[in-house]
Amino acid sequence: MVAPAGHLAVDGRRLIERLDALAEIGAIEGGGCCRLALTEADRAGRDLVVAWMEELGLQVGIDAIGNVVGTWATGSGAPVMVGSHIDTVATGGRFDGNLGVLAGLEVVETLMRAGVRPVRPVAVAFFTDEEGARFAPDMLGSLVYAGGMALETALDVVGVDGARLGDELERIGYAGSLPCPGPAPYAYVELHIEQGPLLEAEGVQIGAVTGVQGISWVELTIVGQSNHAGTTPIALRHDPGYVAAEVAVFARRLAVELGGHQVCTVGALTLHPNLVNVVAAKATMTIDMRNTDDTELLRAEAEMRAFVDAVAAQEGVEVSTRQLARFEPVEFDERMVELVERTARAQGRTVRRMPSGAGHDAQMLARCCPAAMVFVPSAKGISHNPAEHTSPDDLQAGANVLLDVVAHLATEGLA
Amino acid sequence: MVAPAGHLAVDGRRLIERLDALAEIGAIEGGGCCRLALTEADRAGRDLVVAWMEELGLQVGIDAIGNVVGTWATGSGAPVMVGSHIDTVATGGRFDGNLGVLAGLEVVETLMRAGVRPVRPVAVAFFTDEEGARFAPDMLGSLVYAGGMALETALDVVGVDGARLGDELERIGYAGSLPCPGPAPYAYVELHIEQGPLLEAEGVQIGAVTGVQGISWVELTIVGQSNHAGTTPIALRHDPGYVAAEVAVFARRLAVELGGHQVCTVGALTLHPNLVNVVAAKATMTIDMRNTDDTELLRAEAEMRAFVDAVAAQEGVEVSTRQLARFEPVEFDERMVELVERTARAQGRTVRRMPSGAGHDAQMLARCCPAAMVFVPSAKGISHNPAEHTSPDDLQAGANVLLDVVAHLATEGLA
Repeated sequence: MVAPAGHLAVDGRRLIERLDALAEIGAIEGGGCCRLALTEADRAGRDLVVAWMEELGLQVGIDAIGNVVGTWATGSGAPVMVGSHIDTVATGGRFDGNLGVLAGLEVVETLMRAGVRPVRPVAVAFFTDEEGARFAPDMLGSLVYAGGMALETALDVVGVDGARLGDELERIGYAGSLPCPGPAPYAYVELHIEQGPLLEAEGVQIGAVTGVQGISWVELTIVGQSNHAGTTPIALRHDPGYVAAEVAVFARRLAVELGGHQVCTVGALTLHPNLVNVVAAKATMTIDMRNTDDTELLRAEAEMRAFVDAVAAQEGVEVSTRQLARFEPVEFDERMVELVERTARAQGRTVRRMPSGAGHDAQMLARCCPAAMVFVPSAKGISHNPAEHTSPDDLQAGANVLLDVVAHLATEGLA
Repeated sequence: MVAPAGHLAVDGRRLIERLDALAEIGAIEGGGCCRLALTEADRAGRDLVVAWMEELGLQVGIDAIGNVVGTWATGSGAPVMVGSHIDTVATGGRFDGNLGVLAGLEVVETLMRAGVRPVRPVAVAFFTDEEGARFAPDMLGSLVYAGGMALETALDVVGVDGARLGDELERIGYAGSLPCPGPAPYAYVELHIEQGPLLEAEGVQIGAVTGVQGISWVELTIVGQSNHAGTTPIALRHDPGYVAAEVAVFARRLAVELGGHQVCTVGALTLHPNLVNVVAAKATMTIDMRNTDDTELLRAEAEMRAFVDAVAAQEGVEVSTRQLARFEPVEFDERMVELVERTARAQGRTVRRMPSGAGHDAQMLARCCPAAMVFVPSAKGISHNPAEHTSPDDLQAGANVLLDVVAHLATEGLA
């Protein structure tokens, strides 16, 4: 390399200008974005980012699931890849995903302008349908890239609006010719907003992400006996609403008792017929449980099952369980985590190691190469919401950590 | 009287034929009925019952809120009134309400055919909008009849479909000329299905209803902080879904601890945005609490308020409360209750005193005359459901109790 990367810094204004320009596509009230995967808005967002890649002289490749990789074809061997996604949920913010992609462009532009000549190519990628808000599962594009899902299966996924993923990909012109799974990068680094409150609450600037929590999602359907709320003595009730409430309270107790990184959430709960004076006939609810430690997560799942069985038997209701998702925890390469941590500290930032509670493309890329993530604070922990916010200083700080990490990987490489 | 009423019996087949004929109007799948108040189906049902009244030679009067009273103008003074309602909920059964009205016709026809000449008139009434499923509150017609609500207020009620009650009454031709409140009957007796499981569970044939439980309905709106279910540590959550679940569990505990006739039900509970991986921003729930003893009901309300305040403060959520309904308990005239009990026993029936957990027109009539109710078993306690069922034997047994109670009141009168 010509200039030591440690003396370089990204242009924060240029980064924010790109974030603002992309946020204009699919803009919604409150400063957020709606660019659901493979919609017209997603196409327009993709076109803009591809145009920026081409302006930088990157070689743009599109694979068969619509993942886009812009490669700075310098040096030799597998590229150091940075990236994330540019699709959003229906009421998304402007930073979730977009930051990782546009900071990647900023890193490349900064290195290019400084005359740095990496020994390895640097690639900026955005992956199809990370949010999963239109086509399940989430992180679909990176999952296919890493070989975790067959291309044909992914193309046949039908969205919440009845559209077939493969047809929509063709329609917006992003059904590319590159094969899936894609080639393994040398390493993968993703800058992302935390989407949680920890960094802000602790006044820490950078999160060195150690891995992604394992996730267990189950849906319970509880069937009891609908009855008149006035005429049915408590002892004769088979009330699914009561059982659902007991389960939701137990979910909280379980998280508190297990402690550590265990979280449990009942975010969805529906009663039928949902009337003030009718003991419900049926309740449907979800339980979201996560832990960085799969042994603990398995324990939480087992304790929850036992509690559900006990309270259902006691009340005389039938419970059927459907597993909606189950991902084991992902642990990032220790050398990568240490590199992020050391780089942030060298730049004078406060930094803490932390797991990610949310899923990210990096956890899929971790299947085929050393991967890591850099987190920056989310104001009040809010995300998937137009009110999602990260300060310009924090955006710039995160991009500078990404810059030096990429420069290190692209020149010196992993130890 | 010519023949001793105690030797008379209703024609059970004729009663069931009328129930079946009325059930054909607004018939829905499963054997139930949809005759929401003041709809075309309600008009057709009214026309049929009025035609039956006229066939029996009753003088049919319609008051300004659409209550219909068919009077057997025999004897003198205020009439002994029997009745109930013929409107239904959207997924109603064929017995709820209809039984009390058609058993009234059957009682009159039986007395007439037997040549009984009561010393007081006997009137069969059906009251407008008892269910309240289209126009709130429920028991509206009998409430207006008894002077508990001004006619003008009632006519201006707007239904769930946006229609004005007074306009709908005109439209179906049942805006009558008789004044409201209506004249006080000598006494009022209502035969009704229990709508609860007690009689069936205990193998008892007749319920002598002692009164109607007091009702307290509140709606809670709980506002917290929506957050990512994976990234938000438990300690930083303000989860309205969790608070709602705690309140629902407490409602059950409260009912069990207070015992007696106390019931508590959370029948409606809605989370926003209701997604598996999002800590809810808002929860809306109802609490239905009933007791025959108003002191106990007030205590239940106070304990619930204290619990809601405590759990809301602990979780850091805001709760607003709206009282949806509050009726004090109604106690029926002891002489009337005793008459029902004695009559059933004299007919060789098993009988138990019991409060009604549901509201009925009788509780409104109790404001202006001695009133009572006769309950017959509901299979599995099911009501407001096409599966609502009472056996032909039980229907006939209830109508025979009504027959002798009416005959006694119309000849010998109350002690």
